[in-house]
Amino acid sequence: MNRQNTRKTRKTLGIIGFGAFGQLIGLHLHAYFELIAYDPSPIPADVAAEFGVSSGPLNVVSQSDIVVIASPVATFERVVTSIAAVCRPGAIIVDVGSVKTQPSEIMKRLLPDDVNIIATHPLFGPQSAKDGVRGLKIAICPIQGKLHSRFAAFLRKELGLEVIITTPDEHDRDAAIVQGLTHLIAKVLLSMEPLPSRMTTKSFDLLSEGISMVQNDAPEVFEAIEKANPYAEDVRRRFFNLAAKLNAELEE
Amino acid sequence: MNRQNTRKTRKTLGIIGFGAFGQLIGLHLHAYFELIAYDPSPIPADVAAEFGVSSGPLNVVSQSDIVVIASPVATFERVVTSIAAVCRPGAIIVDVGSVKTQPSEIMKRLLPDDVNIIATHPLFGPQSAKDGVRGLKIAICPIQGKLHSRFAAFLRKELGLEVIITTPDEHDRDAAIVQGLTHLIAKVLLSMEPLPSRMTTKSFDLLSEGISMVQNDAPEVFEAIEKANPYAEDVRRRFFNLAAKLNAELEE
Repeated sequence: MNRQNTRKTRKTLGIIGFGAFGQLIGLHLHAYFELIAYDPSPIPADVAAEFGVSSGPLNVVSQSDIVVIASPVATFERVVTSIAAVCRPGAIIVDVGSVKTQPSEIMKRLLPDDVNIIATHPLFGPQSAKDGVRGLKIAICPIQGKLHSRFAAFLRKELGLEVIITTPDEHDRDAAIVQGLTHLIAKVLLSMEPLPSRMTTKSFDLLSEGISMVQNDAPEVFEAIEKANPYAEDVRRRFFNLAAKLNAELEE
Repeated sequence: MNRQNTRKTRKTLGIIGFGAFGQLIGLHLHAYFELIAYDPSPIPADVAAEFGVSSGPLNVVSQSDIVVIASPVATFERVVTSIAAVCRPGAIIVDVGSVKTQPSEIMKRLLPDDVNIIATHPLFGPQSAKDGVRGLKIAICPIQGKLHSRFAAFLRKELGLEVIITTPDEHDRDAAIVQGLTHLIAKVLLSMEPLPSRMTTKSFDLLSEGISMVQNDAPEVFEAIEKANPYAEDVRRRFFNLAAKLNAELEE
């Protein structure tokens, strides 16, 4: 089979938003798909050399069998609005943000009825995936259409991901604790630096390692986790109230 | 060399307080020393079968070349007072508590001038040492006498420990952060249980693992860390103030 034919039989995957996470997707999926990416910022030449780079999101979406929207929460609704009219019938539209209720609602409301919509949250980032994605977790929420089972099977079999099928609401409840607390604790501890690094216990080393994994996350990630997740405020209140109660007990 | 002779050439190590940590010491040191232990609670028969068990602390101390005091902080001064008169000249007296300034001062004040005093803090417990102690850390503070270098060399060469030579004051400054913060965060998170265990990130898994290592620590350990460490209150205040500040920022 010559290259031309191989190319024709491969599906096209378009990535809207080619930041750190978009590039991670490209790295792991270029073996399976024709890739085409768009980012509002210029894509560096060494990265662009490996992928098809498009001048606009509409161009990407109109060519793609699968579209991954990896843009920040703040621009998400604008991106979905702009691409809605050019989605291919039967295409799979996927998001990858840290919260799921709001983006799911936006996609359901704005995208046409003849596309598949799958809201996802890869529970990892460039830092935790630096040695590969095998064994890492991804939450997926089927929103519209029937292709989510095949999509999940691909993630499991080809990428070795642990796929957690859930709903946007269930996801956001758990993520408010898992990500909300990790980032809160990280923010507080990082503001206490320098922390000891030699005279440490194993439990403190584990805490420090956990914190170091999120310390370079973009500010938008923290914003999304703490503000766009409808359950984050409640979790945060419980955390701060329990901390204040413990403080009062110890002051006695 | 018959058994009788071997016995005579081995030094005797006495352990006062044969709880979880005293037993961990016994487990790792019975290959090197004649062991003799005392605990105010009856020592279980299966444990007692492996070690010499004494009916009183004075009996233990008067026979021992090395005495390890592994009793709770609350009874520490009483124990030291009671044994002071029967220490062998040249013996090494060691404590193993989580704070170092106060116990060092007590030992220095109450023990005779002709013993070696070494304040130590093994930065591990039965949980973190369940697969062995090699590579784990211990802080040691030379308080009196000259044998601390030989003692440190034994810990390094025979047990494979990483030995951190420090002062009681330096130790307590670092431990207030390392142990103080780990236990505070653990207390708060454990009171928020049940925490998600499936839909988790790697950073949250590391935090959870760190917390689970201290969750079964005796209440006296938490008391010692938060109340007997002179720097703990300041660290706690900084943590709670920074948490409150972050909360206020997020509420805006």
